[in-house]
Amino acid sequence: MIYLDHAATSPMRESAIEAWARHAGAVNPGAQYASGRKARSVLDSAREQVAEIMGADPVEVVFTASGTEADNVAVQGLFRASSSARIVASAIEHPAVAETVARLGADVELLPVDRSGHICDLSALDTPAALASCMMANNETGAIQPVEQIVARATAQGTPVHVDAVQAVGKIAINFHELGVHTLASSAHKFGGPRGAGFLLARRDSPVQAVMFGGGQERGLRPGTADVASAAALATALGEAVHEMEAEYARLAGLRDKLWQGISSTIDGAVLNTAEPALPGHCHVSFPGADGDSLIMLLDVAGIEASTGSACHAGVNRMSDVLSAMGIPEADGLGSLRLTLGRTTTSEDIEEVLRILPGVVERARSAGLR
Amino acid sequence: MIYLDHAATSPMRESAIEAWARHAGAVNPGAQYASGRKARSVLDSAREQVAEIMGADPVEVVFTASGTEADNVAVQGLFRASSSARIVASAIEHPAVAETVARLGADVELLPVDRSGHICDLSALDTPAALASCMMANNETGAIQPVEQIVARATAQGTPVHVDAVQAVGKIAINFHELGVHTLASSAHKFGGPRGAGFLLARRDSPVQAVMFGGGQERGLRPGTADVASAAALATALGEAVHEMEAEYARLAGLRDKLWQGISSTIDGAVLNTAEPALPGHCHVSFPGADGDSLIMLLDVAGIEASTGSACHAGVNRMSDVLSAMGIPEADGLGSLRLTLGRTTTSEDIEEVLRILPGVVERARSAGLR
Repeated sequence: MIYLDHAATSPMRESAIEAWARHAGAVNPGAQYASGRKARSVLDSAREQVAEIMGADPVEVVFTASGTEADNVAVQGLFRASSSARIVASAIEHPAVAETVARLGADVELLPVDRSGHICDLSALDTPAALASCMMANNETGAIQPVEQIVARATAQGTPVHVDAVQAVGKIAINFHELGVHTLASSAHKFGGPRGAGFLLARRDSPVQAVMFGGGQERGLRPGTADVASAAALATALGEAVHEMEAEYARLAGLRDKLWQGISSTIDGAVLNTAEPALPGHCHVSFPGADGDSLIMLLDVAGIEASTGSACHAGVNRMSDVLSAMGIPEADGLGSLRLTLGRTTTSEDIEEVLRILPGVVERARSAGLR
Repeated sequence: MIYLDHAATSPMRESAIEAWARHAGAVNPGAQYASGRKARSVLDSAREQVAEIMGADPVEVVFTASGTEADNVAVQGLFRASSSARIVASAIEHPAVAETVARLGADVELLPVDRSGHICDLSALDTPAALASCMMANNETGAIQPVEQIVARATAQGTPVHVDAVQAVGKIAINFHELGVHTLASSAHKFGGPRGAGFLLARRDSPVQAVMFGGGQERGLRPGTADVASAAALATALGEAVHEMEAEYARLAGLRDKLWQGISSTIDGAVLNTAEPALPGHCHVSFPGADGDSLIMLLDVAGIEASTGSACHAGVNRMSDVLSAMGIPEADGLGSLRLTLGRTTTSEDIEEVLRILPGVVERARSAGLR
């Protein structure tokens, strides 16, 4: 089995599984007795590790149950804290942001992207807004967005910026304070941590308001008994990911280039939708004339696991909003594969994919002709 | 170490830890390939087990990251779905409900409780409302509430009922369909499942609206990549808890009675605030003249872990809203202990507590006199 869907979820690191198991017995860290204080100390350590790695203060780390939750708290929370009814967001946000923005009854203006998948016009930021939301790197194409420029332009208008860094954390260097955003969302299972865990970074002085209410934990932004074991596992996985980051960036970029060179030299009409700057493990390719679901199915039969469009849209047979925003013709976009490499991907995996894929595309294309 | 804070969090069952570890490698259950289908099948099985145990349909089970989240989705979701601005709730709800109700800008009417901690006047239910919310059993005293009567009275006015069953699930028999409520909240770590996992039961025909938005998972009510390992661990723990329920009910009630009889015969002025019908493991006691925090601290030194008031209020030195609502004088309420027994509690534990507690109360009382 060759797993090329690391952008959907990446296998949990052994060190993270061990950290989870070591702290599975942790009690309520809000309790005043010995075992409660011990749980609190494990939670505090995890928070400090995340803060140090991300260039944030510990108080700015809010443990959540997912990246989606972190995005919701940030986007809803910044919108509610503002008197402005206007939101600026990129046209290629993940549903966790795009759907949330769409449901708030806001005046939404989208930042367009070009054919390379990068935001190409920032002028909507020159009018103040409740918030501007932009992902650090796109989940489908891997395209890294010009967040620094967005922050500079939005900040000049007093607009706070939220960045969805779910795909980027652990893959490229990020320093929260240097970035100057108000909030940042991350998900543990994208960098080898557990599912059901993520974090929001929220600037100390950020007015972000809570979406859910309860016992006041996590600055009141994420009430409920803390999941100490998952927080410890998240911090362990993040530490390992960042420690390996430079070497892994080079290794994955090399494998990804080998993959694309192999595809382009053996499959007619293949189009690379991932353009630099991009995450090293993303290889988003269109095969005009083939159907994406057929490609996935035929690859699956051959023991290769990959995705078409975003994992969240799996099963829905329409071109993704991201590819639409990039101006990709529907005939091409429907025949797309998102191949995402990660920690477990080997050179042999890529060679095997290059052996299998030409036949798969040919079969999918001839099925489409029937 | 004697742990008497099972109502805050109960140690994870070995079987649940094993289930978690077995499925820690599960990928995104929304994916279309082989390992995705396998993850989907584990998630489906967990959903079916929970549904069968709780007397619900699988589609009515919404996996959440906590009981607090389940309460928030239900309360906010039912309120948003209604044109009524009125909410009826008991005066002794957990902060996950009470704080949420307080933040919605609703006209809130509280159902009062009597000195025994049971709701004693249902007349507020005779006027229609967006929802009525009532916990199945109180987290502090363990008092089991007259949910059947509340449902009958609310339903007669077309008011949907939410029940916070976080303390009750796995302890007393509950059948969702027979109960006739719209929504029910539960938390895994209260019955030996993992932290960071819970579920909401939401009737198929319930109009409950989402609090967070994203990829549409869990009927759109809990978006984000599903945490398959935690769902499997939750279902395993729930199955075991319900399997042992009858025997454990009798065992814990026996230990609790022994505890109270020992306390009342050795400590002057002790008042039992837990009154039947109540959960078998709850023993909430006031020691007038002692300070709750001193009691906790002295017990902690002696290796006994217990709570004063609700765990969520730990550290805040004021009488809990629950005790206030019961009409307990502040002088008594501030000297309260919540001793909650559970799976790991033994007869020897109770004997040891009865050996230690009289001296602890005496010391706390004399400290209070200084």
